[in-house]
Amino acid sequence: MNLYRIESDLIGELEVPTNAYYGVQTKRAVENFKISKEKLSDYPTFIQALAQVKLAAAKTNQEIHSLDKDLYQSIRQACLDVIDGQFNDQFPVDLIQGGAGTSVNMNINEVIANRALELMGYKKGEYEFCSPNDHINLAQSTNDAYPTAVKIALFQMHEDIYHAVEDLVTVFRIKGIEFQSITKMGRTQLQDAIPMTMGQEFEAFAFTLEKELKRLNLAREEFLAINMGGTAIGTGLNAPQEFPELCAKNLEEITGIPVYVALNLIESTSDTSCFVEYSSALKRLAIKLSKICNDLRLLSSGPRAGLAEITLPAMQAGSSIMPGKINPVIPEVVNQVCFKVIGNDTTIMMASEAGQLQLNVMEPIIVQTLMESIQLMTNGIISLKEKCIEGIVANKETAESLVKNSIGIVTALNPYIGYKMSTKIAKEALMTGKGVYQLVLEYELLTKSRLDQILNPQNMLAPQIV
Amino acid sequence: MNLYRIESDLIGELEVPTNAYYGVQTKRAVENFKISKEKLSDYPTFIQALAQVKLAAAKTNQEIHSLDKDLYQSIRQACLDVIDGQFNDQFPVDLIQGGAGTSVNMNINEVIANRALELMGYKKGEYEFCSPNDHINLAQSTNDAYPTAVKIALFQMHEDIYHAVEDLVTVFRIKGIEFQSITKMGRTQLQDAIPMTMGQEFEAFAFTLEKELKRLNLAREEFLAINMGGTAIGTGLNAPQEFPELCAKNLEEITGIPVYVALNLIESTSDTSCFVEYSSALKRLAIKLSKICNDLRLLSSGPRAGLAEITLPAMQAGSSIMPGKINPVIPEVVNQVCFKVIGNDTTIMMASEAGQLQLNVMEPIIVQTLMESIQLMTNGIISLKEKCIEGIVANKETAESLVKNSIGIVTALNPYIGYKMSTKIAKEALMTGKGVYQLVLEYELLTKSRLDQILNPQNMLAPQIV
Amino acid sequence: MNLYRIESDLIGELEVPTNAYYGVQTKRAVENFKISKEKLSDYPTFIQALAQVKLAAAKTNQEIHSLDKDLYQSIRQACLDVIDGQFNDQFPVDLIQGGAGTSVNMNINEVIANRALELMGYKKGEYEFCSPNDHINLAQSTNDAYPTAVKIALFQMHEDIYHAVEDLVTVFRIKGIEFQSITKMGRTQLQDAIPMTMGQEFEAFAFTLEKELKRLNLAREEFLAINMGGTAIGTGLNAPQEFPELCAKNLEEITGIPVYVALNLIESTSDTSCFVEYSSALKRLAIKLSKICNDLRLLSSGPRAGLAEITLPAMQAGSSIMPGKINPVIPEVVNQVCFKVIGNDTTIMMASEAGQLQLNVMEPIIVQTLMESIQLMTNGIISLKEKCIEGIVANKETAESLVKNSIGIVTALNPYIGYKMSTKIAKEALMTGKGVYQLVLEYELLTKSRLDQILNPQNMLAPQIV
Amino acid sequence: MNLYRIESDLIGELEVPTNAYYGVQTKRAVENFKISKEKLSDYPTFIQALAQVKLAAAKTNQEIHSLDKDLYQSIRQACLDVIDGQFNDQFPVDLIQGGAGTSVNMNINEVIANRALELMGYKKGEYEFCSPNDHINLAQSTNDAYPTAVKIALFQMHEDIYHAVEDLVTVFRIKGIEFQSITKMGRTQLQDAIPMTMGQEFEAFAFTLEKELKRLNLAREEFLAINMGGTAIGTGLNAPQEFPELCAKNLEEITGIPVYVALNLIESTSDTSCFVEYSSALKRLAIKLSKICNDLRLLSSGPRAGLAEITLPAMQAGSSIMPGKINPVIPEVVNQVCFKVIGNDTTIMMASEAGQLQLNVMEPIIVQTLMESIQLMTNGIISLKEKCIEGIVANKETAESLVKNSIGIVTALNPYIGYKMSTKIAKEALMTGKGVYQLVLEYELLTKSRLDQILNPQNMLAPQIV
Repeated sequence: MNLYRIESDLIGELEVPTNAYYGVQTKRAVENFKISKEKLSDYPTFIQALAQVKLAAAKTNQEIHSLDKDLYQSIRQACLDVIDGQFNDQFPVDLIQGGAGTSVNMNINEVIANRALELMGYKKGEYEFCSPNDHINLAQSTNDAYPTAVKIALFQMHEDIYHAVEDLVTVFRIKGIEFQSITKMGRTQLQDAIPMTMGQEFEAFAFTLEKELKRLNLAREEFLAINMGGTAIGTGLNAPQEFPELCAKNLEEITGIPVYVALNLIESTSDTSCFVEYSSALKRLAIKLSKICNDLRLLSSGPRAGLAEITLPAMQAGSSIMPGKINPVIPEVVNQVCFKVIGNDTTIMMASEAGQLQLNVMEPIIVQTLMESIQLMTNGIISLKEKCIEGIVANKETAESLVKNSIGIVTALNPYIGYKMSTKIAKEALMTGKGVYQLVLEYELLTKSRLDQILNPQNMLAPQIV
Repeated sequence: MNLYRIESDLIGELEVPTNAYYGVQTKRAVENFKISKEKLSDYPTFIQALAQVKLAAAKTNQEIHSLDKDLYQSIRQACLDVIDGQFNDQFPVDLIQGGAGTSVNMNINEVIANRALELMGYKKGEYEFCSPNDHINLAQSTNDAYPTAVKIALFQMHEDIYHAVEDLVTVFRIKGIEFQSITKMGRTQLQDAIPMTMGQEFEAFAFTLEKELKRLNLAREEFLAINMGGTAIGTGLNAPQEFPELCAKNLEEITGIPVYVALNLIESTSDTSCFVEYSSALKRLAIKLSKICNDLRLLSSGPRAGLAEITLPAMQAGSSIMPGKINPVIPEVVNQVCFKVIGNDTTIMMASEAGQLQLNVMEPIIVQTLMESIQLMTNGIISLKEKCIEGIVANKETAESLVKNSIGIVTALNPYIGYKMSTKIAKEALMTGKGVYQLVLEYELLTKSRLDQILNPQNMLAPQIV
Repeated sequence: MNLYRIESDLIGELEVPTNAYYGVQTKRAVENFKISKEKLSDYPTFIQALAQVKLAAAKTNQEIHSLDKDLYQSIRQACLDVIDGQFNDQFPVDLIQGGAGTSVNMNINEVIANRALELMGYKKGEYEFCSPNDHINLAQSTNDAYPTAVKIALFQMHEDIYHAVEDLVTVFRIKGIEFQSITKMGRTQLQDAIPMTMGQEFEAFAFTLEKELKRLNLAREEFLAINMGGTAIGTGLNAPQEFPELCAKNLEEITGIPVYVALNLIESTSDTSCFVEYSSALKRLAIKLSKICNDLRLLSSGPRAGLAEITLPAMQAGSSIMPGKINPVIPEVVNQVCFKVIGNDTTIMMASEAGQLQLNVMEPIIVQTLMESIQLMTNGIISLKEKCIEGIVANKETAESLVKNSIGIVTALNPYIGYKMSTKIAKEALMTGKGVYQLVLEYELLTKSRLDQILNPQNMLAPQIV
Repeated sequence: MNLYRIESDLIGELEVPTNAYYGVQTKRAVENFKISKEKLSDYPTFIQALAQVKLAAAKTNQEIHSLDKDLYQSIRQACLDVIDGQFNDQFPVDLIQGGAGTSVNMNINEVIANRALELMGYKKGEYEFCSPNDHINLAQSTNDAYPTAVKIALFQMHEDIYHAVEDLVTVFRIKGIEFQSITKMGRTQLQDAIPMTMGQEFEAFAFTLEKELKRLNLAREEFLAINMGGTAIGTGLNAPQEFPELCAKNLEEITGIPVYVALNLIESTSDTSCFVEYSSALKRLAIKLSKICNDLRLLSSGPRAGLAEITLPAMQAGSSIMPGKINPVIPEVVNQVCFKVIGNDTTIMMASEAGQLQLNVMEPIIVQTLMESIQLMTNGIISLKEKCIEGIVANKETAESLVKNSIGIVTALNPYIGYKMSTKIAKEALMTGKGVYQLVLEYELLTKSRLDQILNPQNMLAPQIV
């Protein structure tokens, strides 16, 4: 058997490995785009989504009699085989590519065509019986099929990050309950402020991340508007009038995702704002997570020359030179993941802004970057939960001793002795090292019993009933 | 009369101009922060919002009997006078400041206190009768009063940009109708694609911007959750239990804005994600606007060596050396505004990420930057509508002649002669300069009458009924 | 006298205030660009540079006999008057503008022309005797005159920031000497590491900032390559062959800045990389300054529940609710300035990338943004030096007690007992709360005298002589 | 044989595959950091650099008698084997990691130790004879060895990108010569300006990129300052006084790279500005390349409804639906690479700013991101040169016909008839469609022979000799 078969396209002839399910255009794309290490093969969810889109289109074409029933059956089976993951190694194109995704679209078109040919008993490359362009891509263009598959894939990848955040929220909440009776100094501007509980602090972490669940879901909703049937520029040339609605219905059936036809297909073809939106949501999450990791590293600083209010689980020896050093390596790596996600948001912004006229040709970098962000973030969050938060231990004694010794509790005296007198007391405490309690008594500003009540940290943790 | 009165604070004594309504802490802030040209005085909407918050707090304090009725009446009138704009020149603090907004909060506290003193017949600075801290700031902290006022101000500034976008959408839509019968070449990847109408192109601009109205409104909603009553770190120390709900109710009455108490006041005190959110929405709008301005500049390129499909209104002589040159100056300035808004989003991201523990001390730069973005964007959009879009003229002949001469119309032949044969025709047209129409006839692929029907651009503008 | 005179340009006639030195094109620009609060009037250094460029051009034109000697004398005097600052109020154009700076260039052309007319005894607007385009702009275009003036202005503004950094370095260095005998714990990853002196820490701040002086100077050098004589697109149309070299020579004489003619005027006309470069240098400085401010805030955290190794000077009452609270307001405002400068770098990047073909029309936003960054940064650095660093006090006792109590000093034992045994000791110290010293003796790993020598912090501050 | 051997560290015992050259700390790191797809194994240049650093340190230690001669010989051979690439599969740690690079440093320490043990006839894991910490890491810390190896690796990776840019410059220059006699319209603000040659345009591309060579080299120079001998925090604890200079000398001998000891080792330990610098240089290059790719796509727009002044080589069929469509896929992919590099610069900025006190723990993300940027950029530039620029064809007729028909040539008349009259002519040409040449004759402003001379495009391409 020959090692290669000859295929041809607009550019001319090219050798394709005989066994390859992909064809000439994929081969050419592999040669054209030697840019990154990221191949389509590495993104099975995306491959699956592409095959689902192709199946939905084929089913639609068969229903409106554009596609022969027998041919459809073979194409259908070929799509199912790809969805099943059987051909994941047949997608060698670089995810970062020119051509607005044409090489990805042709890769899936070719694999499905050749698999269908095989199922029908033909040889690979005998495209007169099943053509990547005329049959698999029928009534489609890269400009509708590619972004639709991207949206399906992202919709599914969303599940991973959503559940990772959800689980992290739960763990922070559990820690909040665990730490609810530990009093500590709240800090504003890194300066001692007033008392709170460690439980309040951890519940606030849970609460602020929980808000991101809703935010991520809102961003995901924009993926539901698809432009199948818009073909090249959204005018629908070569797609029958019934195609868009029927194809969306079929795609929903196949994927279980409630997609719908975008209201304006021309606008939808060039618009990439749904990706900007999701990246913004990831960035917002990254900003919060980075702040939380900074807090965890700060609160666990020490062991003896830091705040040392909490201890993070020891994951590994912290230093090649300093024995016994344990570092907050998990929050550290999550910080870094956040910086990557934030930088990726810049990339996506640039790419989105670079759209021109009826298309945004920069979609491939948006896709690669957004998928990378989701994966990194998901992995980071899972690590944070499993390898850090779950094992945090509170150093109750340290935390509470700082409260007793604090000047900030003078705040509670404002309503009784006024801000000006409180300031005087605070200043003297700072200068002399004396305690607020002692000074108030020395100045005979309040009785001891009243003072005991007011300065009890327990009474400062929530608004008081008048 | 003395030019100065002496006031004192934690740091010591300081001369304050006798006539000044602001006091020692404002004066000190002016000396401490000589950073930018942006003064609080330049932001009347923000000053008004601060006074509204102080009025709501005072009313609440009076209702729960923390504040004497007579004193309240004077404070109330002082607040109303500030809301009325009578003291806008009394806010000299730099908007970019350290201290998490304390200087802004003390500026409004001092102005209201001194105005109230004046109304009661006292001299400015006689704070024993009405104190900036004990009375105006009663049951509050900078950390709740400042961000609440910021949210009120932004909520109101949103109206301007919302209506500017709304009007721009309308004008693009009108242009879409005006141009609906002009056929032109759609372009993908800057290469000739297939025909469309210029009306479809302009309606797509309208449609894509219209989506941003909903997006901006969604972002604005997050401003409604306020943290009045959380005081220093959200625990509510020194605020009676009834304060939060009552204060929110009063603030809603005063402003007409349906604010509500944030569910978790501790989280709310340090969280700045609502500002990140609004900036993301502005950034998304900027990305779209910049793309549209790029398109307008491209479509109007020429007059003779460009696409020249449209002509933008001539606003000014374009060159100091090239006579008769007219440049697309309005889209150009809007592009630049968009770049500023996008850069500002980076600033806000950095500031938000820098929050620590119970507070984000970087709020002032967030506030200044976000307000700047809104103002620049509003001005840019109004300019674009009034000085550019309304006056765009279509060059119908140029646009339509490009369609007739195009190769891209070969796409419509796919369903009849197949992608492979169409490719052959297209390639030959490109090489020889011949027309697609002529070549199809030469090869006798279709009858003339069938071809006339298929290649009629009018039949390519929307999906066909099969 | 009439309030207005009538002038005309390509667009038509327009009323200009009779007293105005600017003319029709400036007036039109004011109407066209109502975008920001930043007027050319607010940037006297830039106005001066523009007039210097115009003077250099006029001198050159006179020397090569393109400009009449008498007319030159009047133009020269007009330029000198503008350089002198006499007409700073005559530059009302918005710094953010379309048209690639044409409105700025025409503003200076018109002011000089009308001032020259006045000096010659003509009325303003009698441009037949001295024309903004034919005489003041002679042999120039906006595309060479505008960026050249920008470079001159930036070159001069550089001095301010350079000296501010230089002074800050000096103060940090002085503090380094002041603190050279104070031992403290070094920290890596916020965890206790090994001892160092506070002097070493502050000298490192000095040293790292000192490197930026060289970096800023390198970036500034790129401003020296100017493109006068390139005219519209760098081909030099309408500029005599001798113009570029002679004009550069004259501009150097006038400004004292050693400018030279760019090697490729076509490239130079569209290239904005010198601005990108300077902004990158500012960003790098901002990154370092922000890190330093973060460190200062961390080291001064407390007063009782933080690290409290240093105390920053008290600048103002830190809280409207918490009496006696003093916050690190100066480092905080410098952090925020840094975030602004970093965001501005994004804006400049976007604008630079948006250049097209023979020009970058986005220069105005680059100019406004870069000038803003320089001014904010200069102000921030001066504040940091004067209002913070100079007054820092070391808390020697606190710092040194942390060293004595630390586990990190175990590192010094590696060469004597090996990393594995050191790890065992460290771990036990951590678990039991015992001291490293005590444990080594308990395990009889070293003699007391040897141990005393090794664990003396003084012996850990620098490499030891073997 | 057992599948696993047991090793232990600070955390406890762990199974390590018996055959593995790496040990317990690497194994633990693999389990701790499941973040990205980027393994140290994928970066052979970095592995090589790590081994070179370890060899330099070992040689130094032997020379100053800290390391036994025999043991040194085995370590030396082990290092050479790693440098030779024999153990590239033994570096499974994720490049994105917490711990500031400790896991990378321990991975190389362990592989070298176990290889040396093997060479000496011991079993893997018998660290009492050769310890990763006590021998391979002797007189070092992660905090000096890791960044030093990073700098060596980056210095070498620089060669690739440098030569790629160099080659691209050459090709642009050759094209400039090829196109030197083709006249075309220069365009400013996308509007027709004045004539130039296509050769000038391509030479400007060459020239502007050539400037980046010097810029990249300048940035690279900062990698030469290394901090070997600084150990944990730069104080040099556990490193003999002679170590730094001697180690730098040895490292220079081994690598051929003229490294030197940083002047301030404490500053050098926490400073990451050299990475910021190199990323800034890459960003500047990306900005220029992106602009050039935009220009190429614009100039090749068409084939019939665009500028069509040049034709890019056809690399692949451009569309799955539009037959015969050829897209500028190579510039498109390079644009996207540029956006990625620009986004990566944001990541590096964030990571650099996040340094704290004596270390920047975020170095790993800086390293991964910077290496990614270099690789992507190198690949993109090589593609651009080979698959695009070399094959560009000029459409001489199209380009020159646009010049003849242009209004912009009126600029050349300024010196003869004045800007105001030229404006009148230009305006009338624009309104009526008449040519400038014809109008000047109609108005009898110049004689035909004079006009022929002035309006000859050849006379507009450079300054004229007066």
